[in-house]
Amino acid sequence: MLKKFARESYASMTEFVLPNDTNTLNNLMGGRLMHLMDIVAAISAQRHSNSTVVTASVDNVSFATPIKLGNVVTLEAKVTRSFRSSMEVRITVYAEDIPNRYRYKSNEAYFTFVAIYPDGKPREVPELVPESEEEFNLYASALRRRQLRLVLAGRMKPEEATELRSLFQTV
Amino acid sequence: MLKKFARESYASMTEFVLPNDTNTLNNLMGGRLMHLMDIVAAISAQRHSNSTVVTASVDNVSFATPIKLGNVVTLEAKVTRSFRSSMEVRITVYAEDIPNRYRYKSNEAYFTFVAIYPDGKPREVPELVPESEEEFNLYASALRRRQLRLVLAGRMKPEEATELRSLFQTV
Amino acid sequence: MLKKFARESYASMTEFVLPNDTNTLNNLMGGRLMHLMDIVAAISAQRHSNSTVVTASVDNVSFATPIKLGNVVTLEAKVTRSFRSSMEVRITVYAEDIPNRYRYKSNEAYFTFVAIYPDGKPREVPELVPESEEEFNLYASALRRRQLRLVLAGRMKPEEATELRSLFQTV
Amino acid sequence: MLKKFARESYASMTEFVLPNDTNTLNNLMGGRLMHLMDIVAAISAQRHSNSTVVTASVDNVSFATPIKLGNVVTLEAKVTRSFRSSMEVRITVYAEDIPNRYRYKSNEAYFTFVAIYPDGKPREVPELVPESEEEFNLYASALRRRQLRLVLAGRMKPEEATELRSLFQTV
Amino acid sequence: MLKKFARESYASMTEFVLPNDTNTLNNLMGGRLMHLMDIVAAISAQRHSNSTVVTASVDNVSFATPIKLGNVVTLEAKVTRSFRSSMEVRITVYAEDIPNRYRYKSNEAYFTFVAIYPDGKPREVPELVPESEEEFNLYASALRRRQLRLVLAGRMKPEEATELRSLFQTV
Amino acid sequence: MLKKFARESYASMTEFVLPNDTNTLNNLMGGRLMHLMDIVAAISAQRHSNSTVVTASVDNVSFATPIKLGNVVTLEAKVTRSFRSSMEVRITVYAEDIPNRYRYKSNEAYFTFVAIYPDGKPREVPELVPESEEEFNLYASALRRRQLRLVLAGRMKPEEATELRSLFQTV
Repeated sequence: MLKKFARESYASMTEFVLPNDTNTLNNLMGGRLMHLMDIVAAISAQRHSNSTVVTASVDNVSFATPIKLGNVVTLEAKVTRSFRSSMEVRITVYAEDIPNRYRYKSNEAYFTFVAIYPDGKPREVPELVPESEEEFNLYASALRRRQLRLVLAGRMKPEEATELRSLFQTV
Repeated sequence: MLKKFARESYASMTEFVLPNDTNTLNNLMGGRLMHLMDIVAAISAQRHSNSTVVTASVDNVSFATPIKLGNVVTLEAKVTRSFRSSMEVRITVYAEDIPNRYRYKSNEAYFTFVAIYPDGKPREVPELVPESEEEFNLYASALRRRQLRLVLAGRMKPEEATELRSLFQTV
Repeated sequence: MLKKFARESYASMTEFVLPNDTNTLNNLMGGRLMHLMDIVAAISAQRHSNSTVVTASVDNVSFATPIKLGNVVTLEAKVTRSFRSSMEVRITVYAEDIPNRYRYKSNEAYFTFVAIYPDGKPREVPELVPESEEEFNLYASALRRRQLRLVLAGRMKPEEATELRSLFQTV
Repeated sequence: MLKKFARESYASMTEFVLPNDTNTLNNLMGGRLMHLMDIVAAISAQRHSNSTVVTASVDNVSFATPIKLGNVVTLEAKVTRSFRSSMEVRITVYAEDIPNRYRYKSNEAYFTFVAIYPDGKPREVPELVPESEEEFNLYASALRRRQLRLVLAGRMKPEEATELRSLFQTV
Repeated sequence: MLKKFARESYASMTEFVLPNDTNTLNNLMGGRLMHLMDIVAAISAQRHSNSTVVTASVDNVSFATPIKLGNVVTLEAKVTRSFRSSMEVRITVYAEDIPNRYRYKSNEAYFTFVAIYPDGKPREVPELVPESEEEFNLYASALRRRQLRLVLAGRMKPEEATELRSLFQTV
Repeated sequence: MLKKFARESYASMTEFVLPNDTNTLNNLMGGRLMHLMDIVAAISAQRHSNSTVVTASVDNVSFATPIKLGNVVTLEAKVTRSFRSSMEVRITVYAEDIPNRYRYKSNEAYFTFVAIYPDGKPREVPELVPESEEEFNLYASALRRRQLRLVLAGRMKPEEATELRSLFQTV
């Protein structure tokens, strides 16, 4: 069974915020940003699986600081862990107002993809091997996020979500 | 303080799935669908608040069944509950292969928006008044979803999330 | 021979007016609005015929009031009458400046579609059954509009356009 | 009062039919073609008026022959006649399958534009001077098309439409 | 072997500069203009070869004067000379601020295309026959531009570029 | 006077080739690729100058291998040398067919940008400091490319292009 390092799945994307991406206050629309997140994350999942992939789910994303027209958005994606035929990808978004030398982390999100054969059937993907400390932490916590996803989708009973329980247990 | 009915915020959108919306298997890309969800939900939140709105967060969305090129996507959005200056909007997505008389519910999602003044400061929104049984259920469960959002964003301690605890408590 | 009610063909679409949709005065361009009309009307004609459809003609459309950048455009479409393999669809366009609580009927148009087989040959469509008074009126006047279309396309002699003649006859 | 020749308002546009312009049968969608017609006709009306213009109305357009993906569409526009602050523009559409040396006239349409000041008020435009025989014919028949537009918009009584009456009178 | 006149390959395109085509100073972006150049030049090369074509190279292009939002861009393309299976196309770009009656030549560029069979293999194209003095000059200088292209692509030794040498020789 | 390292201007962009980016043979169109090159290079030039920038010129680009629909295109850009208010940026393009584990260098190009003040006047940019051997080579050869640009634009006499002469001199 093939194994691949997390860093082999790295993908990044840089875009100008154009007029049609913005609302009437000249802020990047959330939906447009999620569209970009999905593209860069799909490329990362393709890199890990060497396969066509489809988006299976998107975890909770929050939008704290508005990104302005003319700013530059940089998205970085890397697979955190694989499960049989699915992969969790973490996307980090940075916004920059370059002329004003202002750059900040804008968002962070987890998307899950499934690798599929041309007939649409799921196919197995390589095991993900973390190397850095951050990659190890993301690998470990991926289990908890997966359980939350399954519970929210009604596909796992809360009492079986052992990883998750520790988060919400109240003694 | 103004109150408004849930049904007053109803918005719907219908689109053909075009070639550029699809991946190499001719399936609608998840990111493109989230882009559409964001637009219809923002219109719904505008209807409730009569204000400019910005996307504050997106709850977990899962994509079970692929939507094909040439299909028709219908999105329906309605505010479920308002909190001071924010509103939770529920989006339901239906996909149709009209020539084959095949229509199914494809996705369901919750987006949160904040109403803002032209200077970007948050502004209060009307209280949401549910009428139908479904609207009452969505109104009630909105509290639990909100606590999950706050816990996931690190803005509420799990032990304070009283609504949420019941979901994961195992006793 | 299948019959279907007018209401079964109902389709609606809601869109924000984005920067690229507007001219230098920030008004929605007429051509962009006709593009939206064509999409929503085609979906309506698909709903009636459960078939692929192609645009056969567009009746006179007038643009009285400009629709502004950031406004919301709502288009509603319903089949008014069917003829063997063609269908007349009526589109009504509403524009809204939601923050200013201003909504008005912007346009009204009639598009005609032909249902076709995959090889491009026309196919028969269900008979349209009107129910409401408005639907009955639209059903009746569809004949007159059809004759005008045929006369303008040079496919009917004016003296044969019995329905139309009454409109222009001066005795 | 300024006068300008018809040929001074000539504008032409050439486009490839791209995947997103087409329906599931790979035919150019009618709405997309009307979008292109509106742009080239607006440029023509700008050339005549040296002013910002807005679309006022679109006459009946029919779509006889499908235009295929990969074909080249050529649109030609020229003002036929001006009326105080409005101009009628005639658009002729040609489709070409260049590798197969096949070119044909696909559509013909009349759009009307109004010249406006930056505050949106209508402004006078130069008188149109026809030169060729075709320009003279179009200049003359413009009156009849204008009356039909006014009658259809409910702004002229049929019995006052003297030019139009001759067309439908049957005596 | 077929011969064709330069004028038979003429193609022109006219476009409004829309918001999404511009940078934060409301100037048309260079990359967007090159995109338009490529489309009109490809149509011209198709006209000469009656074949599918692919872009083989783009000569040095310079951008001297900014083109503003709302301006009209007109591109004209014509084949200057053909070589076995390739064609050089010259594109001239004009920008117009029509309301201010200001029109100027903005750019000039040379693109090279290769005619290909459906399997991607190159195919021979007709010989180009110049007629006007300008066409003769462009036909003659095409050889020099071709040598520069080959030298820059490392496919010709500078000392073999006899046409080019005269340009840089200093003796 | 500020100095900056070449690596500080690094920008990269990753995109899927979508249907509307391709010609009838499903190959990425050259003009679309140049559009992407211009965006990533402009971001790189912004990074070096912390200023708004405009494209001044594009050097000869050749397109050897077709990039297919569904492939992933990665563009990398870095400033090679700055001149008072202008910067030369080198763009390298890689194409990948990820499922088939096939990646190759597709193109290489040099774009030149000018940094401008909000009123459009040129402004000085930091001096570029090369570090690696490749950066030193690109820094040195930038002078030759600049002379070629000036000669081609008619702004330098060939006999003054001392750097360039060595290239074409044959003695």
